[in-house]
Amino acid sequence: MHGLMMDYPLTMDRILEHAYRLYPHKRITTKLPDGSMHQYTYTHLYERVKRLANVLGKLGVKPGDRVGTFAWNNYQHLELYYAIPCSGAVCHTLNIRLFPEQLTYIVNHAEDKVVFIDATLLPLFEGVAEQIDCVQHYVLFNADRGLETKLPNVSFYEELMADADDDYEWRATDENAAMGLCYTSGTTGDPKGVLYSHRSMYLHTMGANQANSLALTEADVVLTVVPQFHAMAWGLPYACAFAGAEMVMPGPHLKPPDLAEMIAEEKVTVPAGVPTIWTGLYHELKENPRDVSHVRALLVGGAAMPRALIEAYEKDLNINVLHAWGMTEMSPLGTVSHLQSHHHELPKHEQWDVKARQGYPVAGVEMRIVNDAGEELLWDGVTMGEVQVRGPWIAKAYYKVDSSSEHFTPDGWFRTGDVATMSEDGYMHITDRTKDLVKSGGEWISSVALENSLMAHQSVMEAAVIAIPDERWGERPMAVVVLASDANPVTDEELLEYLAPKFPKFWLPNRLAFIEEIPKTSVGKFDKKVLRHRYAEGKLG
Amino acid sequence: MHGLMMDYPLTMDRILEHAYRLYPHKRITTKLPDGSMHQYTYTHLYERVKRLANVLGKLGVKPGDRVGTFAWNNYQHLELYYAIPCSGAVCHTLNIRLFPEQLTYIVNHAEDKVVFIDATLLPLFEGVAEQIDCVQHYVLFNADRGLETKLPNVSFYEELMADADDDYEWRATDENAAMGLCYTSGTTGDPKGVLYSHRSMYLHTMGANQANSLALTEADVVLTVVPQFHAMAWGLPYACAFAGAEMVMPGPHLKPPDLAEMIAEEKVTVPAGVPTIWTGLYHELKENPRDVSHVRALLVGGAAMPRALIEAYEKDLNINVLHAWGMTEMSPLGTVSHLQSHHHELPKHEQWDVKARQGYPVAGVEMRIVNDAGEELLWDGVTMGEVQVRGPWIAKAYYKVDSSSEHFTPDGWFRTGDVATMSEDGYMHITDRTKDLVKSGGEWISSVALENSLMAHQSVMEAAVIAIPDERWGERPMAVVVLASDANPVTDEELLEYLAPKFPKFWLPNRLAFIEEIPKTSVGKFDKKVLRHRYAEGKLG
Repeated sequence: MHGLMMDYPLTMDRILEHAYRLYPHKRITTKLPDGSMHQYTYTHLYERVKRLANVLGKLGVKPGDRVGTFAWNNYQHLELYYAIPCSGAVCHTLNIRLFPEQLTYIVNHAEDKVVFIDATLLPLFEGVAEQIDCVQHYVLFNADRGLETKLPNVSFYEELMADADDDYEWRATDENAAMGLCYTSGTTGDPKGVLYSHRSMYLHTMGANQANSLALTEADVVLTVVPQFHAMAWGLPYACAFAGAEMVMPGPHLKPPDLAEMIAEEKVTVPAGVPTIWTGLYHELKENPRDVSHVRALLVGGAAMPRALIEAYEKDLNINVLHAWGMTEMSPLGTVSHLQSHHHELPKHEQWDVKARQGYPVAGVEMRIVNDAGEELLWDGVTMGEVQVRGPWIAKAYYKVDSSSEHFTPDGWFRTGDVATMSEDGYMHITDRTKDLVKSGGEWISSVALENSLMAHQSVMEAAVIAIPDERWGERPMAVVVLASDANPVTDEELLEYLAPKFPKFWLPNRLAFIEEIPKTSVGKFDKKVLRHRYAEGKLG
Repeated sequence: MHGLMMDYPLTMDRILEHAYRLYPHKRITTKLPDGSMHQYTYTHLYERVKRLANVLGKLGVKPGDRVGTFAWNNYQHLELYYAIPCSGAVCHTLNIRLFPEQLTYIVNHAEDKVVFIDATLLPLFEGVAEQIDCVQHYVLFNADRGLETKLPNVSFYEELMADADDDYEWRATDENAAMGLCYTSGTTGDPKGVLYSHRSMYLHTMGANQANSLALTEADVVLTVVPQFHAMAWGLPYACAFAGAEMVMPGPHLKPPDLAEMIAEEKVTVPAGVPTIWTGLYHELKENPRDVSHVRALLVGGAAMPRALIEAYEKDLNINVLHAWGMTEMSPLGTVSHLQSHHHELPKHEQWDVKARQGYPVAGVEMRIVNDAGEELLWDGVTMGEVQVRGPWIAKAYYKVDSSSEHFTPDGWFRTGDVATMSEDGYMHITDRTKDLVKSGGEWISSVALENSLMAHQSVMEAAVIAIPDERWGERPMAVVVLASDANPVTDEELLEYLAPKFPKFWLPNRLAFIEEIPKTSVGKFDKKVLRHRYAEGKLG
């Protein structure tokens, strides 16, 4: 027997309507390429989204078509975030930091029909356009009319907008229809597309706005440093509108002094970005203090925030750090690391330990850790297992890819590829990636834990730990170390002695090698694939 | 094109699993009939719900069957709130305050197969049992084994639980399946059943836990004075579990000293109940002060909280009142009246004006006000219209009742029957019920506004304003007044003169009558039907 409640599709236009109705005067601020500030309200956003939806219709965009965006964070990009799904099409955010071959692959694979380009990024796109034939129109914004470009079929955003009708009836009626597409830049194989539905993003929005979660309200001013071309900007463009929070978007201005100024001037309450950005901001604020007392949570995700930086923010700047974790496949929000009521009595250093974990699953996300055999493991804060997740805003497959057991379990969970412990009170602490784990004699050794410990040594600048094939144990850990330029000399034996009291004996690397520089990926992570190849199969010896 | 996100049904068992996983040690406290306190954790709740689900199976309950509950707020009732829907059946909460004929009608109309009865309420139910033939089993809790009863087919809750297996696989797999049933005690016609689905209640739970909404977190301790037999206890049993909030349930102990003691002893942060309860609590706390500094929001709904009481709570007790509004047909949450950031600069008396309104729609609920012709009206804080709502947790029909335009509009909105203004910033202020409005010469006159003004006169104890048929104007207002026993004498002309400067001339009642007592309904509201009948058609004389 079915309930008798309204058949009310959960679609993106409902979120925009809510903001328009409840928060018409709340502001949306963009730092433009020339450094000046652009500001308008949710009322203006709403009206321009309707215009833009008509523009899409004129360009021949039909429900289900993919429409690409290639842009910094700005109000035009935000308009696209709404107009594309609200007209029934799929908002495909293109990562401006990809290699040309990846970008070409992704646009062709998605079969984008129209691509909207931030003209400040035009040269990047011009470099690949010849290899792309699915795109029927390129539309430029932040562009002068006279701009010359090698791109074919170019039109200009503001001209199209000026000609468009401002009346429009939203076209999204099926909550299961696709609304967004974002490719993950995996370290192996081709990039893979995650295809969000209206329903999944609406539920993600409600998940993010829970009081136990990001807890956005109309009193918030959110600075989205996290790019809109990455994991739907953590869903913040939708969460802000549903909560009535104001938005500040930095455009291309990501340098610490720019960010510090925006936070101070716009009275930002929640700046959101990755750890490297916040490392820069910390030093900026130390050197050039500003009033940042309105910041209630410095939201950080995308990579683990070092505990020392969390502590420094709180001790030196009185800024509370909110650690979160997610993945493109998770829309992306999975966990947040608010302190809970039972932590408030703890001494500060123990509170920072909690905040340095990635946190507890937000309501709506289910989480488990499993061993190699797929058996569920205990939440005891010690046992490491692969993190698997399930929920209404988590992917069940990749776009145009046959589902594989590498990413999805037979019983319907997504395999995150992260290895973590779960504390008894539900806080996840990521210790490794499955690909980087060392599996020695059936036991798991965390490469990340060994690396962090080595990098805490005063003579070590960087350290990577990789698995080396071993006849007896299957794999054994090896450490590759870059010494600090001004370091006291240190031997491999001394470093191993330094590690010895910190870890079980079988964790200690069999061998240590000193090198000049650790190879890195395009996004600056250690490229362990290269290291494994270099040192594998006895090349060590 | 559909998105590629998990097909994850939004069902009640997901909420219980979340609480069990994340908040195993959070407490659930009940004041038992004998006045002693019963306390256990979400772990115990979880385990007993699994047992109870097996009990239901043994009693022959099948998916879709209706299972009645007739009980105060207590842990057994909470177990039923989960076990019934999580086993696929429908939790039908029976109002213990109904007249016998209504109760009989409702049980038979719902065709309840099993009814669980709080033994402290046994005599009430025994009085109607002979008129009921659909019920195959009655199960008693809070009962001694030797209890004698006239009910047929009786078994005892704890005996069934002791015999039941504690392993159970949840049966709710379709999010659109019915999970709950609650009848509204309409003032006209037969009671009508609202049939909630898993999806609607899951979304209502997320709606309630938004930071702009009730904002429950794991730091909260919620006292549910609002009965579990009324509008699903405002959804709090589910919202608390999803947020990890602790619960305190008063059982039959609803007297002000009992409530004050529970709030103080259990360090309650959110007491939730109707205005009459809070009137009593206010006087209790004034006379016998207790430490209630942990209360962050005194949640009030079910009827309008008088502005004076909101002010008194804040001024005299430093307790923040959170006004909310909803209806059984809305699961029930519709609006909350938190102050917003732009109110913080206002003087206190203007803040209390805001808090005395019913508030803004929570994210997920759409709201509009319309005139008699169904045209949407302005949100200007002055124009009155009928409130209509739409959203994923709002009813589209009543159980086994043909849908009618009296309750639902052709374009898919629910007609609440409330008349309100909406301020420009989205705060609803209810001015009347459509049934009680006076429609004079095509214009609406608020009976509630006139009543409130009359009752503010020092000589008036109670006042009701009703519509009287009028040949020229259609209807005209008439006031019926009960003078305070110790009042100075006052004439009808003096009272009309007192009203004159406060209202447009055409609002002023044509006539005023003094009576001994205003007739009331079973739930203590003015029974205007009786008054209209008494004074209609020239009986006014």
